Amino acid sequence: MSSNYQKLLEKVYEIHDIEKAMGVLSWDKETNMPKAGMQARIQQMTTLRRLSHAMFTSDEMGELIETAAADVQDAAYESNEASLIRYLRRSYEESRQLPPAFVRRVSEVSGKANPAWVEARENNDFAHFQPHLEEVVKLVQEMAELYGYEDEKYDPLLDKFEHGMKTAEVRAIFNAVKEELIPLRQAIEERGSVVDDSIVHQSFPIDKQKEFARYIANAVGYDFSRGHLGTVVHPFATSFSRNDARITTRWYPNFLNPSLFGTLHESGHAMYEQGTHPDLARTPLARGTSSGIHESQSRMIENIVGRSLGFWQAHYPKLQKLFPEQLNGHDVTEFYRAVNKVQPSYIRVEADELTYNFHIILRFELEQAMLNGDLAVADLPTAWNDKMKELLGVVPPTDSEGCLQDIHWSRPGFGYFPTYALGNLYAAQFYEAAVSQNPTIAEEMAQGKTGALVAWLRENIHQHGRKFTPAELVQKATGGPLTHEPFMRYVTKKFSEIYEL
Amino acid sequence: MSSNYQKLLEKVYEIHDIEKAMGVLSWDKETNMPKAGMQARIQQMTTLRRLSHAMFTSDEMGELIETAAADVQDAAYESNEASLIRYLRRSYEESRQLPPAFVRRVSEVSGKANPAWVEARENNDFAHFQPHLEEVVKLVQEMAELYGYEDEKYDPLLDKFEHGMKTAEVRAIFNAVKEELIPLRQAIEERGSVVDDSIVHQSFPIDKQKEFARYIANAVGYDFSRGHLGTVVHPFATSFSRNDARITTRWYPNFLNPSLFGTLHESGHAMYEQGTHPDLARTPLARGTSSGIHESQSRMIENIVGRSLGFWQAHYPKLQKLFPEQLNGHDVTEFYRAVNKVQPSYIRVEADELTYNFHIILRFELEQAMLNGDLAVADLPTAWNDKMKELLGVVPPTDSEGCLQDIHWSRPGFGYFPTYALGNLYAAQFYEAAVSQNPTIAEEMAQGKTGALVAWLRENIHQHGRKFTPAELVQKATGGPLTHEPFMRYVTKKFSEIYEL
Repeated sequence: MSSNYQKLLEKVYEIHDIEKAMGVLSWDKETNMPKAGMQARIQQMTTLRRLSHAMFTSDEMGELIETAAADVQDAAYESNEASLIRYLRRSYEESRQLPPAFVRRVSEVSGKANPAWVEARENNDFAHFQPHLEEVVKLVQEMAELYGYEDEKYDPLLDKFEHGMKTAEVRAIFNAVKEELIPLRQAIEERGSVVDDSIVHQSFPIDKQKEFARYIANAVGYDFSRGHLGTVVHPFATSFSRNDARITTRWYPNFLNPSLFGTLHESGHAMYEQGTHPDLARTPLARGTSSGIHESQSRMIENIVGRSLGFWQAHYPKLQKLFPEQLNGHDVTEFYRAVNKVQPSYIRVEADELTYNFHIILRFELEQAMLNGDLAVADLPTAWNDKMKELLGVVPPTDSEGCLQDIHWSRPGFGYFPTYALGNLYAAQFYEAAVSQNPTIAEEMAQGKTGALVAWLRENIHQHGRKFTPAELVQKATGGPLTHEPFMRYVTKKFSEIYEL
Repeated sequence: MSSNYQKLLEKVYEIHDIEKAMGVLSWDKETNMPKAGMQARIQQMTTLRRLSHAMFTSDEMGELIETAAADVQDAAYESNEASLIRYLRRSYEESRQLPPAFVRRVSEVSGKANPAWVEARENNDFAHFQPHLEEVVKLVQEMAELYGYEDEKYDPLLDKFEHGMKTAEVRAIFNAVKEELIPLRQAIEERGSVVDDSIVHQSFPIDKQKEFARYIANAVGYDFSRGHLGTVVHPFATSFSRNDARITTRWYPNFLNPSLFGTLHESGHAMYEQGTHPDLARTPLARGTSSGIHESQSRMIENIVGRSLGFWQAHYPKLQKLFPEQLNGHDVTEFYRAVNKVQPSYIRVEADELTYNFHIILRFELEQAMLNGDLAVADLPTAWNDKMKELLGVVPPTDSEGCLQDIHWSRPGFGYFPTYALGNLYAAQFYEAAVSQNPTIAEEMAQGKTGALVAWLRENIHQHGRKFTPAELVQKATGGPLTHEPFMRYVTKKFSEIYEL
């Protein structure tokens, strides 16, 4: 290996270590830290962030990247070396596109907008949040200009979360989804209440929920010997290396779904990180390639695996044994139908597998309208409710249950929302390709087993980490670009059966 | 405030933040991290350590200290500014006394000696550890020369843990302790088995042990709103700020003492850090001033408070309520006597309040003998057993229960052991002074309350952090230098009563 490339690696390792240390501090903040420790913790994290940022954005780093790049210019496109250089060049350039004064303004605006949003949501008082959201919109408008774009202003924002994806592509796919998904939703509604989910709304002692959550996380392929399950208010997954990728869950005493599907969701995220190739360790390539692809892994485990009939045929007896009072007398079909109930609702994070996408399409469209100046922030509540009516057929009674429900717009994070729905679409496309390449996967899944599926994911997705763009990865893994069709086939078949359409 | 001093503070804060981040990584390593995460964690901690070390030992830091010192040269000795300059000057000088090549050798030797020690202890095979210990002894001999000394070679090693204390002082105090404590131990032995501790050796469900541990930690004054209790194999306390000072405990299903007194011990340590003055935050002064003074706070809470009759008269009913099967029919006096049983034993960490000091005196004497070349490492097992016979009247049947029991000699940590016993002596002297200054303390203690005692500790010990040397602190708080007399008065009175001497 060239000594310039080696020198670059040493610096990359150092920055990576600092960033992973920040990750540990953040994990600890959410799981164990007493609230009183917040001020010192923020100082510690700020110091580490400043250090890693200064190291990465230095002129010296730019030179290191270029001298190393010259030394490995003959490396194949797919090699770790060429992939790392590609990633670092892009990331280095982006890190220098936002002037320090702008970055400070982002911190200041978010620092005020976030508590204002918390208060506004608590008091159902959109007017209190409105001036802050106006500031946020100004910031994302400026940010788009600073990054620059060719086609649409939304492009550079989306690119930060889904590199290489264009707004126009997403729009075309989402429009196709809408066109087919709205009639499906309506057909289900017309069937009335053929699905009853009252059995998941009972009292479930939390220690047994924990036991079962650990059991199913292990069953789907999450490796506890390289992980840890923590308790938090807002669940997430995080990793400090491929050998320490953690999940978190919250526990509701009277509702089983959050612990079941939350645990499976985060397990899917963490399995992605556990599956990155060891040779990528201590580099920024050792993680998921984009928000959308990451979400495809969590949705694969949560929904395609975790909400399948085969999965519950295998694991429901164990659940019944833990909760005999609650579940005896209810067979697996009833349980399977209960956890797949379709029910248009106001709150995104509580939405079912089918209607979830509408929540995202709504936000995607409203974000662009605000960004492009087509929608004044003052008019957001009305626009929100109109779109809810159009897509979901329901209108939230309050703004707290409407346009104030998500944290995302209290910081300049425009461009993130679409990746949630893209995750659902990627997942269905990956699964269809996997089964067609290896029919054993479907046979195993019918028995609630995931060994072959996880092996396919490891081989085609996980191991590559951030070497390839989402589009490259989808092409390599499935032989074509992202389309909505596999997802529509998947939900149409599944819910037609459940709702006897 | 002068701008040079302000510049120094900014740098001090930055280094402090990195070191506290290392503390969080270390805490997480012991409490939550899967074993598989070790390699990456060591890399992360090594990177942070290298960064903070490079920052602190730089020429720039030396200049910052001196220019700031010139600006605050008129500050009073007791001021935060003068105290910080004193501490930084000493610490800066020390950090540059060991050449980088020597520091690397320390890492290498420890890195090999530690696993060899683990193996030797497991297999009761001193010969396996002997060559490593010989290397360690060579290192501490060189280290003493690098630091330099006027009187004794042991002085500079001791100084790292108990700044300003001389070996000759410790020797004089320990000799006085020996002279009075051996006869007391023998008198107790002659009384035979008047104390029965079988009630603490029963089955105690761990969830209830945890509940009671939290209860008594809170009762003695540990502030859970600024802390956290974790579970580990080897308990310790640590802090990331005065508002986040944590304790850890281990739980034995069939022995109550470790969770009771381990929790109280670590609470005492953590309360010291919780009590440092807010103005010292983010500087190296915001922690206990020495190993010995720190140990005095843990021993105060563990023994002087936690093994007192008043404490158990107040809290034993709660314990009985949690463990009725185990404790009903045994009154508080019986329990008090059980947790104060004197029993010469082989293992230091299991020793009672009275015989513990003998374990330390033995190590203090043997460390010096090895350091000075008076004792060949090969002869350590024999020398160990001879001293055990002399001081404790018992001889361990194996080296694993003898000279191989502690981790300390697998790294060049000579000079640390004496601070454990110094902690006991400081604690007794502080307590005597506190009660003579405020008699309410004794009245409260008779009712199991610690409010007035903790207030005295806050005022006289905790708030000062590392501003003063141990000797300065003892002088200020008690009006004289450290002596063994308060300790001897305390144990003589207490154990004469229990053993009806």
